[in-house]
Amino acid sequence: MQRIDGRAAGELRNVRIVRHYLKHPEGSCYIEMGDTRVICSASIEEKVPHFLKNTGRGWITAEYSMLPRSTTTRTPRESVMGRINGRTHEIQRLIGRSLRAVTRLEHLGERTVWIDCDVIQADGGTRTASITGAFVALVDAVMFLLKEGKIDVFPLRDSVAAVSVGKVGGEILVDLTYMEDSKAQVDMNLVMTGRGEIIEIQGTAEEAPFTKSELDRMIEVGYEAIKRLTVIQREVLSDITHVWRF
Amino acid sequence: MQRIDGRAAGELRNVRIVRHYLKHPEGSCYIEMGDTRVICSASIEEKVPHFLKNTGRGWITAEYSMLPRSTTTRTPRESVMGRINGRTHEIQRLIGRSLRAVTRLEHLGERTVWIDCDVIQADGGTRTASITGAFVALVDAVMFLLKEGKIDVFPLRDSVAAVSVGKVGGEILVDLTYMEDSKAQVDMNLVMTGRGEIIEIQGTAEEAPFTKSELDRMIEVGYEAIKRLTVIQREVLSDITHVWRF
Amino acid sequence: MQRIDGRAAGELRNVRIVRHYLKHPEGSCYIEMGDTRVICSASIEEKVPHFLKNTGRGWITAEYSMLPRSTTTRTPRESVMGRINGRTHEIQRLIGRSLRAVTRLEHLGERTVWIDCDVIQADGGTRTASITGAFVALVDAVMFLLKEGKIDVFPLRDSVAAVSVGKVGGEILVDLTYMEDSKAQVDMNLVMTGRGEIIEIQGTAEEAPFTKSELDRMIEVGYEAIKRLTVIQREVLSDITHVWRF
Amino acid sequence: MQRIDGRAAGELRNVRIVRHYLKHPEGSCYIEMGDTRVICSASIEEKVPHFLKNTGRGWITAEYSMLPRSTTTRTPRESVMGRINGRTHEIQRLIGRSLRAVTRLEHLGERTVWIDCDVIQADGGTRTASITGAFVALVDAVMFLLKEGKIDVFPLRDSVAAVSVGKVGGEILVDLTYMEDSKAQVDMNLVMTGRGEIIEIQGTAEEAPFTKSELDRMIEVGYEAIKRLTVIQREVLSDITHVWRF
Amino acid sequence: MQRIDGRAAGELRNVRIVRHYLKHPEGSCYIEMGDTRVICSASIEEKVPHFLKNTGRGWITAEYSMLPRSTTTRTPRESVMGRINGRTHEIQRLIGRSLRAVTRLEHLGERTVWIDCDVIQADGGTRTASITGAFVALVDAVMFLLKEGKIDVFPLRDSVAAVSVGKVGGEILVDLTYMEDSKAQVDMNLVMTGRGEIIEIQGTAEEAPFTKSELDRMIEVGYEAIKRLTVIQREVLSDITHVWRF
Amino acid sequence: MQRIDGRAAGELRNVRIVRHYLKHPEGSCYIEMGDTRVICSASIEEKVPHFLKNTGRGWITAEYSMLPRSTTTRTPRESVMGRINGRTHEIQRLIGRSLRAVTRLEHLGERTVWIDCDVIQADGGTRTASITGAFVALVDAVMFLLKEGKIDVFPLRDSVAAVSVGKVGGEILVDLTYMEDSKAQVDMNLVMTGRGEIIEIQGTAEEAPFTKSELDRMIEVGYEAIKRLTVIQREVLSDITHVWRF
Repeated sequence: MQRIDGRAAGELRNVRIVRHYLKHPEGSCYIEMGDTRVICSASIEEKVPHFLKNTGRGWITAEYSMLPRSTTTRTPRESVMGRINGRTHEIQRLIGRSLRAVTRLEHLGERTVWIDCDVIQADGGTRTASITGAFVALVDAVMFLLKEGKIDVFPLRDSVAAVSVGKVGGEILVDLTYMEDSKAQVDMNLVMTGRGEIIEIQGTAEEAPFTKSELDRMIEVGYEAIKRLTVIQREVLSDITHVWRF
Repeated sequence: MQRIDGRAAGELRNVRIVRHYLKHPEGSCYIEMGDTRVICSASIEEKVPHFLKNTGRGWITAEYSMLPRSTTTRTPRESVMGRINGRTHEIQRLIGRSLRAVTRLEHLGERTVWIDCDVIQADGGTRTASITGAFVALVDAVMFLLKEGKIDVFPLRDSVAAVSVGKVGGEILVDLTYMEDSKAQVDMNLVMTGRGEIIEIQGTAEEAPFTKSELDRMIEVGYEAIKRLTVIQREVLSDITHVWRF
Repeated sequence: MQRIDGRAAGELRNVRIVRHYLKHPEGSCYIEMGDTRVICSASIEEKVPHFLKNTGRGWITAEYSMLPRSTTTRTPRESVMGRINGRTHEIQRLIGRSLRAVTRLEHLGERTVWIDCDVIQADGGTRTASITGAFVALVDAVMFLLKEGKIDVFPLRDSVAAVSVGKVGGEILVDLTYMEDSKAQVDMNLVMTGRGEIIEIQGTAEEAPFTKSELDRMIEVGYEAIKRLTVIQREVLSDITHVWRF
Repeated sequence: MQRIDGRAAGELRNVRIVRHYLKHPEGSCYIEMGDTRVICSASIEEKVPHFLKNTGRGWITAEYSMLPRSTTTRTPRESVMGRINGRTHEIQRLIGRSLRAVTRLEHLGERTVWIDCDVIQADGGTRTASITGAFVALVDAVMFLLKEGKIDVFPLRDSVAAVSVGKVGGEILVDLTYMEDSKAQVDMNLVMTGRGEIIEIQGTAEEAPFTKSELDRMIEVGYEAIKRLTVIQREVLSDITHVWRF
Repeated sequence: MQRIDGRAAGELRNVRIVRHYLKHPEGSCYIEMGDTRVICSASIEEKVPHFLKNTGRGWITAEYSMLPRSTTTRTPRESVMGRINGRTHEIQRLIGRSLRAVTRLEHLGERTVWIDCDVIQADGGTRTASITGAFVALVDAVMFLLKEGKIDVFPLRDSVAAVSVGKVGGEILVDLTYMEDSKAQVDMNLVMTGRGEIIEIQGTAEEAPFTKSELDRMIEVGYEAIKRLTVIQREVLSDITHVWRF
Repeated sequence: MQRIDGRAAGELRNVRIVRHYLKHPEGSCYIEMGDTRVICSASIEEKVPHFLKNTGRGWITAEYSMLPRSTTTRTPRESVMGRINGRTHEIQRLIGRSLRAVTRLEHLGERTVWIDCDVIQADGGTRTASITGAFVALVDAVMFLLKEGKIDVFPLRDSVAAVSVGKVGGEILVDLTYMEDSKAQVDMNLVMTGRGEIIEIQGTAEEAPFTKSELDRMIEVGYEAIKRLTVIQREVLSDITHVWRF
């Protein structure tokens, strides 16, 4: 079966990552996966949340937002609504957890890295693109800390990337567009490390429950895609291999 | 290895479900899993959200809350904070999705079932206990609709129950207490149907990534526990077998 | 005239108080007055509001909430509305004042007792049941402080209980159900001490003004009911008579 | 005992009411009780709250606010805080109830009278001054409806006025200044009709409970003061006696 | 062309300023420009915003609000809406900037002057009347600081007053009423010092763009009006000429 | 005097406008003025605000926001703060007014154009860049309406562009960077049409008042800059000259 955009079931959309996209943040990048486009930045704050004070450990937290017209029809701003909705909360918690899972927080020192993922254009997979891009921004923020002498040890233990997998019309597809996602019977987001371990798996039956063997197949397909994303991340970050090789 | 409370790794805590716990709601129950205690209610509203108007389909939505002193130290009320936090959003979206996944919404008619899960006392696994209890309340609300002649067809296609599984000190444990949960390296919530299919799987590496084979083992252990919860649900609902047998 | 539920005009509904209802709070109870059911807890916080800092005095404050489906039709959560409504404010201020009026705050030390009254099921008189139950929870929180050696002197000077009184169909009734309350011409809440002094009186003409002699009659009837509530509180707390006898 | 400002225990402060204080509202007045100064307005809206639609009945609702510097030290605006506090809620509900209690709402027609009480300067008794002034504004709004031919029957059945009474240093005082109020052992607000019936009584033990005979004495003193306020209202409204005499 | 109220194009409405209008604030006044009536107060707070801590400099900030029925039809309170609208923000920022521009903030010491402008009745030009009145309140607050010995040097370097100018039906008019304002093609607010320098100019094409020469003409007309307002301010403040002459 | 970046006093930074920057909105562009980068979109909604219903007239409204790390240090999101601050309100009102001033709203039909200006990177002049870019997005949205046959007449009567002008160190500079802006004694934003008429002028004395002749000089310098921006807009939109030539 060929997909609308001609891709094979296990094929990623075109991925493009532009490092140093913004001049102010310590780390930043622009990531495109097909028509999904996200600006990721990583900002250092020399403070930690209350529960980490005097522990010597750092923190990574994420915020996610969509421009009002990143979507097919205009979505009202959350600032205007006066509150952040459940989906946004869910996504930004996922991004934060995913990055923390590959970070030795005790090597960050008592500071916070704020990850901002702002979706410029949405066409499915905005949360997974955010994670893949945020990792690149995080690496640059960490490099900044090293150069400034604020930390001595490179604090990341592995890379992290993410992809969506879904069962659409009975078939397992990877990196779903918005169109495919809206017809999916099962929707899964998979976050894995460069070494192939799982950081987060979220599988949801949108319409009908799924079997263990379907789950296994989705993880397999997702794993292959994440391997390719890891290769792209490595290329983009190839100039830091003297410090860290993942 | 024996657990603090003497349970085996795959053993559930004591489960107790009291049906018809409240007099006003169309369906309600009280569920205890060890020291975790939740009041679940299901309320019928003869209205659907905007996007379902004139589709003939119904909706199920959930709200979740904890009493301020359900927790070890007092948690400020979300009504006082003026906003619902991310964790609450995440949980109530999970509960809603889980129940919708076993419901033929077109057989509900254009009405909404509001599920309210209020945690009276928390000791780990409040979201999974909420799902297991909410299913019982939902069945009674649906029975109410049948008795009132508002629907003709029993709209549920399977039962649903949920359990937490975690990796604690290298071991896979089921139905974690708060103490165990706070030490878990991996934390998973598994929602399955009575027939053993997966509705939702959420696995999170709290500290270190996990392998596919660890995931498989966790699903296996969780599945066994959900089978036992399903038996308990069946007993509690044994008087409706003339209408529905799951 | 006999009332719907067969009670005499001055008769209370069945009262049931379960002490130590929750495992986390320093004091807690469950109170039932007929179909009105409330969970009360008393939590110690080792802090006082700003205006009491460095005065050596403590504080008691209350929060009140109703489960969404404690009511005949579902009431939206205040956390979802984003604000606490006027009725809730009014009630929680009343509960707080009532308990402070029988407490020697200078003997509490610089700490706050948070009273939480959560209505599980509502059938009239939720605020008065909350006060009567909250007193029991407060006593246990105070006993906790004594046992922990945090205070030396028992800081309560009297007990407190409350009841509603109303003029319904020309007759003065005590402890109104929701049905009676909604038909009342005059609605009064009376909070008194075990010794029979008044802490708070709130009488409201819902439909038509009332005379001083009607007020006198309502107070008289309410006083008799509060005496019976005091007896019940004494029984429930009979094991602390070595420390305090009220 | 003479009071700080030379008044006798049962003596009111100077009362001044200026009718037609604002040009836009259908009814408005300015009321001064000593240094307490309030602007009251009554605005007609040709709509009723949802629960009154198609009942033919009208509604009266009140809002109360204090200018930030009406108080000794500046009080932050509730609009800036983003929420209305409990005291404000309590007061505006009291004002609304008091006016509704003397109004035949079925004779108002399906419209709402919005009462706005804005405290320009506060020196105790702002809620009672608001009620006394709001009644005058309400009369003028009602006269407007009559003149416009929107209603045929004068819908008020009695006048309403209010006063504070307190026990200060063992003595029963009427119309307390802020200074007196802050030292009161018992604080009572009494709302009565021109014919001497009670609309609302709220008595609170600020420090120590009070006896029934103290309550009786406070009501007696308050009643005398309200009689004098009624006389002042009558004088101010003497030109409407062809329509209504209270 | 004669205006509705008989004024000439460049003529101000009647201006009336009552100093010391409130007893609590350090400075306050009541200002009337025709039917526009505003209460202005200036409150001293011995604190500065975060960004000024340890700089030795003071701050002036303003809040602006309208009574709900200052307007032709009732405007809902911002406290009830839960947020301050854009127009209010715009106006209070303008008032604050205007006063700061004539103040040597380093001579205020580390304290804040809170300016509150509350519109009692609105008939056009409420923001400009607020500025003109707020200056008088500010002078009195500053005199208070001098008398109390909290500052040594009079910190104002000039007076400030403001007026609206508009192009209505092709003609340039000053001090517009609400009626005139609502028909204006161009709307300008001009804030100037007593010495005739510009502090703020805000000119807006409501309907059609305007030329530079029209702008020049509006400034000229506005300047003449501000000179007359300055004379009135001087008269009102004539008793402080031993300290400051502007 | 040469400026930090080598520009002459009256020289603009490099301007770059990319049309059709996003795929979903009816009109969109990306605008760069030096390091200031803004995404502008124009979305059609087939609805008008309440006050325009059944008038046949359309509306244009704008929202403005900055990415958290568009600024030197991270600015908290307004969605997280729960409210939009005063500066944002001020700016988005300015953008909306500026575009409406060149639009024949009666030719838009009863629909709203939502303008979204999202600042990706901020280095001074974000509001003026937003206006200049928003005009281009608006033109494309209007072209969309024409092509779709929803309107017959091109509804814009002129182009609009904006620039900042300031007095920095005694000199009049155009198109200020953030650095220059923060040292400016006078700060002016000028919005003009392609034909050289004024739509909005906002001049603010940040530190010291300014004279009429300084104002004249600033307008002159700003006017020259806006002429150059108009030329750039014309080039970017050169393909629509068959429909409209400005």
